[in-house]
Amino acid sequence: MNPEPVFVGFDIGGTNVRGVPLHADGSIGDTVKMARPEDPENLVVTIAALTGQLAEAVGAEVAAVGVGCAGIVDKAGVVRASPNIPSLVQFPLKDQLEARLGLETLVENDATTATWAEARLGAARGFDDVAFVGLGTGIGTGFVLGGRLHRGAAGFAGESGHMTVMHDGLACACGRRGCWERYASGTAFGRLAREAAADGRADSLLELAGGSPDAVTSEHAATLIAVGDTQALAILSELGYWVAVGIANLVNVLDPAAVVIGGGLAEMGEPLLASIRAAYPKVMIDHELRDALAIVRSDFGGRSGAIGAALLAQDL
Amino acid sequence: MNPEPVFVGFDIGGTNVRGVPLHADGSIGDTVKMARPEDPENLVVTIAALTGQLAEAVGAEVAAVGVGCAGIVDKAGVVRASPNIPSLVQFPLKDQLEARLGLETLVENDATTATWAEARLGAARGFDDVAFVGLGTGIGTGFVLGGRLHRGAAGFAGESGHMTVMHDGLACACGRRGCWERYASGTAFGRLAREAAADGRADSLLELAGGSPDAVTSEHAATLIAVGDTQALAILSELGYWVAVGIANLVNVLDPAAVVIGGGLAEMGEPLLASIRAAYPKVMIDHELRDALAIVRSDFGGRSGAIGAALLAQDL
Repeated sequence: MNPEPVFVGFDIGGTNVRGVPLHADGSIGDTVKMARPEDPENLVVTIAALTGQLAEAVGAEVAAVGVGCAGIVDKAGVVRASPNIPSLVQFPLKDQLEARLGLETLVENDATTATWAEARLGAARGFDDVAFVGLGTGIGTGFVLGGRLHRGAAGFAGESGHMTVMHDGLACACGRRGCWERYASGTAFGRLAREAAADGRADSLLELAGGSPDAVTSEHAATLIAVGDTQALAILSELGYWVAVGIANLVNVLDPAAVVIGGGLAEMGEPLLASIRAAYPKVMIDHELRDALAIVRSDFGGRSGAIGAALLAQDL
Repeated sequence: MNPEPVFVGFDIGGTNVRGVPLHADGSIGDTVKMARPEDPENLVVTIAALTGQLAEAVGAEVAAVGVGCAGIVDKAGVVRASPNIPSLVQFPLKDQLEARLGLETLVENDATTATWAEARLGAARGFDDVAFVGLGTGIGTGFVLGGRLHRGAAGFAGESGHMTVMHDGLACACGRRGCWERYASGTAFGRLAREAAADGRADSLLELAGGSPDAVTSEHAATLIAVGDTQALAILSELGYWVAVGIANLVNVLDPAAVVIGGGLAEMGEPLLASIRAAYPKVMIDHELRDALAIVRSDFGGRSGAIGAALLAQDL
């Protein structure tokens, strides 16, 4: 069907490893996935197995492989540390994959690859200066600046979830306090929802969770937001405010023209975007002197990391 | 003496307008300066007069002019607003100067031009990913990323002094609260010194200021730091801590390999750098997994803005 070689992109997530084929004509094929193993060696085996599975599914050779992985990934493709996989410390994932696959391979931070997907083919297509903000368990970000993917000196750019926005604030898993992702991630959204439930500001939410504030999750809140529950929307406003605080920081530093909101929380869609867009002008200095900032939702959702990795593999 | 045309760079400061000539061979001539007028029209007249003065002094034609100006300067060279000159609102400084001088002219934010000077010829020579942090009345920053000067979509990158680092913290002139420059600028240093004097943590400082804590200035503190006063050095440690908090934010976002400390506070030299270098590892996450960050002092001091503007004029 498609005799030209394909480029394959992977995203190593908290639960699964997902792969997508990118055809030479720019079209993207169906996703394959497997459970994400705990140890680095089986991770390499899993990616190799999925690569074979994708090649068979599309009936074409694989030209090169790209991998997006959460964490601190250096320019040599060594995962120095990953929040999802504690065993992945100073692991030369690129070299190991190349040895196993016999194919040129790149490994980048997953938010970096997602940024490239959205800027090249997705929600920020046509913009030269883009910030991607992935709202998941934590916050992963990436930047296209002057039309180029920004990796930083060692490849560690985009750890914006650990910007201090509240000095001496809530404790973060990173060991510091007051990091942005403690206030504006999916984890933070769950906390805001539990606080609202405990404070009597979220009756339906409390009911949905079986009556115990501690049982409230961000998923419960998202369920009620989808049906327009006003108390749940008020919790989303709080979250949107905190997302906007960090976006304002990024705009002050970098002045992008577009911000793409991705990650699991982006599945809430328009209500989330609306909450961020409503808060942003209030937290951004000199807002009236500036050009409009496009705050848009990721086009590729959970696939953006893998698609971006495939696109980067194409440029190898 | 030097028959080839020169490039002239200006820096519009709080008090003076300073100009430097950049010769075709890369050498930099003597600075000229005049008091900075209050109104935009006389600012144009002043820059034109200094351009003539510089041409005469070096005995050469002027090929092009660059201007660094504090504030929000767009890519068309329109100063949308400037903290130093309240009358400079939506003023087309580039067009006005070109009309007056009959020369190609560029106007950029002054921290942006300073960044270029330090990255091309100064303290960060040889680095591809650089953050410049100018500690003056406020904090002005700029970035060279992947070897290129980063301006942002509209030209407004580098307003990092207004990153929120303490949500709901001290009020800032920008109208927001908790901006980095409220904690880590020259203004903040004066406040920290007054607090120390009022709290009985700075006997010599209080004495130097005539016995009243309210009379203590950052200059008093700098005087004592120069002679190694331990109480004044403790105040500097506090400042260095806050400078490091913001640098950690910038490193999380951008991952530069070098940070250049400039602005008036950099005149304190090594004690300031030492205070920042001591604090940085404590506030930076995953510090042990990262490559070393060079934290260095500006080579050009107060001239970096004008020198960078001249360098940029050379590339017109």
